[in-house]
Amino acid sequence: MLLTEIIKFIKEGESGYISSYFNKDMDIIGPASIEFASKNQITFLEENNNLKDKINTTKSSAIIIFENKELVQITKEKNISSIVVSYPKIAFAEILKIFEKEITPDTGIDSSVKIGSNSNIGDNCYVGPNVIIGKNTNIGKNNYIYPGTVILDNVKIGDGNIIFPNCVIYQNTRIKNYCIVNSNTVIGSEGFGFTPKDGKWLKVPQTGGVIINNSVEIGTNCCIDRPAIGETIIGEGTKIDNLVQIGHGVKVGKNCAFAAQVGIAGGAIIGDGVILAGQVGVNNRVKVGNKVIASSKCGIHADVNDGEIISGFPALPNKLWLRSSTIFKKLPELAKKLRQLDNK
Amino acid sequence: MLLTEIIKFIKEGESGYISSYFNKDMDIIGPASIEFASKNQITFLEENNNLKDKINTTKSSAIIIFENKELVQITKEKNISSIVVSYPKIAFAEILKIFEKEITPDTGIDSSVKIGSNSNIGDNCYVGPNVIIGKNTNIGKNNYIYPGTVILDNVKIGDGNIIFPNCVIYQNTRIKNYCIVNSNTVIGSEGFGFTPKDGKWLKVPQTGGVIINNSVEIGTNCCIDRPAIGETIIGEGTKIDNLVQIGHGVKVGKNCAFAAQVGIAGGAIIGDGVILAGQVGVNNRVKVGNKVIASSKCGIHADVNDGEIISGFPALPNKLWLRSSTIFKKLPELAKKLRQLDNK
Amino acid sequence: MLLTEIIKFIKEGESGYISSYFNKDMDIIGPASIEFASKNQITFLEENNNLKDKINTTKSSAIIIFENKELVQITKEKNISSIVVSYPKIAFAEILKIFEKEITPDTGIDSSVKIGSNSNIGDNCYVGPNVIIGKNTNIGKNNYIYPGTVILDNVKIGDGNIIFPNCVIYQNTRIKNYCIVNSNTVIGSEGFGFTPKDGKWLKVPQTGGVIINNSVEIGTNCCIDRPAIGETIIGEGTKIDNLVQIGHGVKVGKNCAFAAQVGIAGGAIIGDGVILAGQVGVNNRVKVGNKVIASSKCGIHADVNDGEIISGFPALPNKLWLRSSTIFKKLPELAKKLRQLDNK
Repeated sequence: MLLTEIIKFIKEGESGYISSYFNKDMDIIGPASIEFASKNQITFLEENNNLKDKINTTKSSAIIIFENKELVQITKEKNISSIVVSYPKIAFAEILKIFEKEITPDTGIDSSVKIGSNSNIGDNCYVGPNVIIGKNTNIGKNNYIYPGTVILDNVKIGDGNIIFPNCVIYQNTRIKNYCIVNSNTVIGSEGFGFTPKDGKWLKVPQTGGVIINNSVEIGTNCCIDRPAIGETIIGEGTKIDNLVQIGHGVKVGKNCAFAAQVGIAGGAIIGDGVILAGQVGVNNRVKVGNKVIASSKCGIHADVNDGEIISGFPALPNKLWLRSSTIFKKLPELAKKLRQLDNK
Repeated sequence: MLLTEIIKFIKEGESGYISSYFNKDMDIIGPASIEFASKNQITFLEENNNLKDKINTTKSSAIIIFENKELVQITKEKNISSIVVSYPKIAFAEILKIFEKEITPDTGIDSSVKIGSNSNIGDNCYVGPNVIIGKNTNIGKNNYIYPGTVILDNVKIGDGNIIFPNCVIYQNTRIKNYCIVNSNTVIGSEGFGFTPKDGKWLKVPQTGGVIINNSVEIGTNCCIDRPAIGETIIGEGTKIDNLVQIGHGVKVGKNCAFAAQVGIAGGAIIGDGVILAGQVGVNNRVKVGNKVIASSKCGIHADVNDGEIISGFPALPNKLWLRSSTIFKKLPELAKKLRQLDNK
Repeated sequence: MLLTEIIKFIKEGESGYISSYFNKDMDIIGPASIEFASKNQITFLEENNNLKDKINTTKSSAIIIFENKELVQITKEKNISSIVVSYPKIAFAEILKIFEKEITPDTGIDSSVKIGSNSNIGDNCYVGPNVIIGKNTNIGKNNYIYPGTVILDNVKIGDGNIIFPNCVIYQNTRIKNYCIVNSNTVIGSEGFGFTPKDGKWLKVPQTGGVIINNSVEIGTNCCIDRPAIGETIIGEGTKIDNLVQIGHGVKVGKNCAFAAQVGIAGGAIIGDGVILAGQVGVNNRVKVGNKVIASSKCGIHADVNDGEIISGFPALPNKLWLRSSTIFKKLPELAKKLRQLDNK
């Protein structure tokens, strides 16, 4: 693809095109990272990117950068064509999309698929080998359901969803539109509902369901449980990484991002735009406000107000946690000093 | 179902019926949470429930409560019928069971099931599409094995078990009776047994097995490994949530409850009635006494005596951990104060 | 098998045979742990093994031990035959291998297997029921692919690999030779690549692949993601336990060992011979040097030099962390003492 075509494409995109500098047009054969790019490849550099000094050694022929006179100067000197935009990562994502090797998807419903009574599959769906679909289940149009996925009874799946291989969707689950569910993820399994009775655990039937709203993406090996009553809900546009646990009755807002191995216990309520980093835990029934950011391994035991940035376990305001952690490693010195003062 | 019928049912149940108050009989159409209940629904309120004040706004027509004069008075004033019991959650679990929409289960052995030589399936089992059963494997009666589950050679499964879709049961696993294994869980995979040799890892063959005793329930995406020799054992009545790791040779006692993302390393010994909250880790070969409770994210590095309540990482007695954590967030002040004293 | 044959076998092995003591030859019926061994079984005892005192009560007829005069003396007195080697665990692993009940593996390609266009399977492979193989996928010789595994398009699998049931291998994955992938593990799923745009998450296409080098072993329910560009790489001889997350673009060196529930975020670079204990987390883009050891639940937020032993969260040198943790539990006392001094 010609560099001028790429520039035209970026201008039409959402990255906020500002300007471009090049000597002559050239064929761009694909995108690459700044470290591994070779001749006729295009790369990018974000603000605050710790690979900034790699610009001196990169072999790429073109680069998407943020607005910065020094950077433009360096690329000119090194004879690298540059495209300046407000959001280089967005421009690069658009370029990746152009060059993404299209996996020609299979189409149609494989002959090995079994469909229960009173269930329907809409137009233009791919349903792969060994997919099993229960009774009273409704699947809309333009869905891709990859091999080995099992969908039980009373499930509703809207339009334009992708469900990767070997997932399991239990009864009473509703997946709306344009969602992606990665492999081996389980949605709608029974919540962990037991109550003690004479030293044993009495089971609380989990009769509720799960609602996955539009444009949600869920990683591999995740678990989203259904509650005793009511619904577990994942809000529109929320993205969930791998090995994440969402307990029974949890309500997650819109446009959240949960990194891998996050665990949210039953009944917690998570606001909109919340970011939970890797291995964060949220206690049951806790309320986490809108736009809260929790850093990795944070343990959230109590309600958190809108907009807070929290860290540690139990969770503290991030800045306080950083200060206290800095002193934690000086505790042996502090204890010694205290003994000395005490002995005076 | 009439309210008077529900009261009769609760009297015959295990929640400890005390009394009931209502003006006239009515039709109850189903159970609901106190927040979302509407007319002609029944809800419940436990002692220590943080939703207690919702009783002023609930629209439910009936409520199961614990013994409390004030509560009875409020419900009377609000014209909500009340049923007073010792354990409201148990009564509510019983009500849920009545109203649970019966998923009419499939029956029989699907024609796509493959069964290895010298293997048997008992009477009255459901074995779903694409289930694969290995050689020398014995499956008792009244079992439900959902689609896509793979059972390897030399497995013994007793009576009345439910195994949900896409599980894998490896060789030398024994599952006794009335167990539930949720989707995508793997039982009997080889333990992580390697020993260093010349900078590489030499594999220790894992020739043992796994025993799952009666009435155990296991969540989704769990892993229970087999050991080099002997058995990994899960005791009767123990309940395990999602994404839990049980290492090779672990012995778990009776009636334990492990929340999601708990990890128990190889050779650990867990007593009876132990409760491990979410993301707790237990080091290898550690012994955890009976009725120990570990709060979320606790890291158990050393043996724990019967009945202890522990928290933090490394684990401390819960009360000490709470006090130390309270001071942790004051460390910047403390360090400042210490500097001031030192400079005097 | 005769004891003298076992001794001969150990002499030829890699455990460093030193000497052996026995009165008369005998039939050894199998290996067992020192606690549960019975007559005519063989067991072992490592240096630093906390079961050392069990030698006084074991019923085993033979034992593999490390060089230690006292131990030899005790075994003589107890009339237990002993084999002295440099590495008892290695000798025991070799013995386990002899006695391991051979699971006679199935052979051939099951009739239910579906293979996409332009894909090949080499000689002498077992491909179990319901395995699905995509297009343009190349599988070498001597591979075992167990039932229910799904392999998508453009995958390369070398020779001598074992892939257990219900795994999913996505496009652009390359598995070299002699690897083991345990059940329900997903390799090559799309990395968690999103960038914020107007309060929503814009998807960064993940066009890269995953390379699993020779002799890698991966546990159950693991996730190894592919990156936007380039490759996620697992180095030769690395062993990975269950429920481990390897983010997009991570590079893992040779002969590492990662325990269960470890999470490594996108772009991290892990050296050779690194040991990460259970539930350790590594932040994105962090560099962890060769032979680093991180103890359980450690949170690695910043680069770590070769050979360091680290603990805690955020990670500290292990010895410092131990000292600081010891003082952490005395914080209430320290704070009290400080108040007293301040009041003087």
